[in-house]
Amino acid sequence: MITDLNIYKNLSQTNENKIVLLVMDGLGGIPLHVNGLTELETAHTPNLDRLAREGSVGRSIPIRPGITPGSGPAHLSLFSYDPIKFDIGRGVLEAFGIGFDLGAKDLAARGNFATVDAGGLVSDRRAGRIPTEECIRLCDKLQANTSLAEQGYEVIAKPVKEHRFVLVIRGDGLGGDLTDTDPLVTGKAPLAVEDESGTAEGAHSAALVNKWVEQARAVLADEPKANSLNLRGLARDPGLPQFTDIYQMRSAAIAVYPMYKGVAKLVGMDVIDFSGDRPFHQIEVLAHVWKEYDFFFIHIKKTDSYGEDGNFDAKVHEIEAVDQVIHHLLALEPAVVIVTGDHSTPAKMQSHSYHPVPTLFWGEDVMPDSVAVFGERASEGGAMGVFHATEIVPWATGYAGKLARFGA
Amino acid sequence: MITDLNIYKNLSQTNENKIVLLVMDGLGGIPLHVNGLTELETAHTPNLDRLAREGSVGRSIPIRPGITPGSGPAHLSLFSYDPIKFDIGRGVLEAFGIGFDLGAKDLAARGNFATVDAGGLVSDRRAGRIPTEECIRLCDKLQANTSLAEQGYEVIAKPVKEHRFVLVIRGDGLGGDLTDTDPLVTGKAPLAVEDESGTAEGAHSAALVNKWVEQARAVLADEPKANSLNLRGLARDPGLPQFTDIYQMRSAAIAVYPMYKGVAKLVGMDVIDFSGDRPFHQIEVLAHVWKEYDFFFIHIKKTDSYGEDGNFDAKVHEIEAVDQVIHHLLALEPAVVIVTGDHSTPAKMQSHSYHPVPTLFWGEDVMPDSVAVFGERASEGGAMGVFHATEIVPWATGYAGKLARFGA
Repeated sequence: MITDLNIYKNLSQTNENKIVLLVMDGLGGIPLHVNGLTELETAHTPNLDRLAREGSVGRSIPIRPGITPGSGPAHLSLFSYDPIKFDIGRGVLEAFGIGFDLGAKDLAARGNFATVDAGGLVSDRRAGRIPTEECIRLCDKLQANTSLAEQGYEVIAKPVKEHRFVLVIRGDGLGGDLTDTDPLVTGKAPLAVEDESGTAEGAHSAALVNKWVEQARAVLADEPKANSLNLRGLARDPGLPQFTDIYQMRSAAIAVYPMYKGVAKLVGMDVIDFSGDRPFHQIEVLAHVWKEYDFFFIHIKKTDSYGEDGNFDAKVHEIEAVDQVIHHLLALEPAVVIVTGDHSTPAKMQSHSYHPVPTLFWGEDVMPDSVAVFGERASEGGAMGVFHATEIVPWATGYAGKLARFGA
Repeated sequence: MITDLNIYKNLSQTNENKIVLLVMDGLGGIPLHVNGLTELETAHTPNLDRLAREGSVGRSIPIRPGITPGSGPAHLSLFSYDPIKFDIGRGVLEAFGIGFDLGAKDLAARGNFATVDAGGLVSDRRAGRIPTEECIRLCDKLQANTSLAEQGYEVIAKPVKEHRFVLVIRGDGLGGDLTDTDPLVTGKAPLAVEDESGTAEGAHSAALVNKWVEQARAVLADEPKANSLNLRGLARDPGLPQFTDIYQMRSAAIAVYPMYKGVAKLVGMDVIDFSGDRPFHQIEVLAHVWKEYDFFFIHIKKTDSYGEDGNFDAKVHEIEAVDQVIHHLLALEPAVVIVTGDHSTPAKMQSHSYHPVPTLFWGEDVMPDSVAVFGERASEGGAMGVFHATEIVPWATGYAGKLARFGA
């Protein structure tokens, strides 16, 4: 069932038990052929299997049945925030995704460089996926030649990758419910931003963004590869209820990629700085900050990347690399360990997918169910069944004794 | 999923089929050691196993994932009332818990005898858990020496156990959303009752309760063991929709302990008086009233008590004692039998727990699933999966043919 955070906020209590949420991005898979195995089933994972044997397993649904998650919503779900209820604007996720420190006065948009024909109709919504270096140059050009200073606002344009960039407008009184400029098909003119909230700040913000877009398109007009741009997902940081407040746990994120640091920051976790990008580096960092926190989110990226590349074997090996650090993790004596993914990324599909994600819970008071292996089909028999990913943290805090009894 | 009572109210229809809900309090367990068995798995239960073999099994979640239930909310859930939605005040549960016949004009509170130091700060919130005889004496003293008659109200103080008592104030115009006097920590002064509803009756009730508390503390001031008291969970009977109306079943509760009789009464069941406290006594009573009712709630307490004592073997034996009366139960020819617990009470944890509860459904039209044993791990493979406890009565009424078809 979908988690109601208020219930947990009312029951949470502190103790010394520590919880580790180990996320292998895109963990779940499907076999390449009907009679084949998944990546996780193929991987040699004696340590994860031990956790499965001693604990409970099941499969988690990140968003809703059949829905393929983006990374942002999938992680919100892992942190127990229903991504349908807590709708984070794409601009905000994109800004967090590049590690931009979005403030309360910032309105953020996902920008796409594009091309328009002589009549002003969109001819390529992604400007032929220009190289990232070109994106950087264009962002610098926009930064130097556009301004809303006269209106009292700061403008920041930051490159992301290929045709993608982030626009941030900073100042007082921004907000509303703003539409995209992207017509979503070629052969149509870009749209003006409109406000659907009916508020004064919405109307003001729409006018401001349109003014900037006009300037920016003029600046780009003579560019050979990307003579226009569009904005999507204009939004502010929604000010989510903070994970640390709801569960009364000092919480740390040990992630390599900006996107995951960003979502962790969005819910109030401390993001730990460190160098190195392998699972064993991450466990070293975990050991280093162990005493300072109660909850640890460890994010392993490459399982997903290899899945998206369609590289079945490399994904298998990355899962095995994680398996090899499990004993270092257990040596720290966590009370509860959860191993899961934010979603599935089957190498066969070369993309994120909607398949439920194998998930294990391990700890002193976790029911040792009848499953002795960590894998998609093994988890069918597990005690946890099929459940919504927003249940993961609630179960973990229960197992860790961090929830007071409900009622007399 | 959480049960919506209105749906069932609209579909319920009467027939001659009888349903038995057999609740072993705290039934669920976990193994003492990773490779061990639970209490239910250890128990020799050929009759329960037969029901499991012929019926469907699964595991029910009493409140929400990870949340440990109190007995009151857990039973509401068994009766298909979501305890998050139907929040019964602690005072009401405590009053029902001692068999007090709470009326519509009654405001009830859970009382705790306490001690305060010379400065009026709480030094022991439970007055050293005074013996129950002392509690009885102090309640009599309060009954004789406090009064709200001048204000037009009756006051009733009833002992519960050790430092616990129930206060009931009876009269017109009581209500509101009243705070506790217990500061919850020692070294602080007791709090005045405040109303958070903002209603006139709330403000009036808060003033009235504060007046009584002042009198009561003066009466206790020279007591050596308990020179003060606190009140918690001030509330009225919330007037729940009645089970008998929703499901159109004449319903009887066959329980030994006041608490469970109380919750049954709260939803409108008839509470059957009888003597004897063993499972076979309860089945005798069942046979006696069999023709008069359609739905029977049988509550077995000692499975929970032994779990709380950490007495694994005694809990096993109590489960076996229940198993031995199953054939007497079946001889009455019930249409549907449900065997479950209100929550888990693993002897290992010596307390209620959040673990899903093994639950079986037996009846002519119940799907015989592939599970042939009643137990925690056996039920992992059962047809019912993991489900919310509020689904139990809906499934049972469906199996008993007591729900009309939905739509043409």
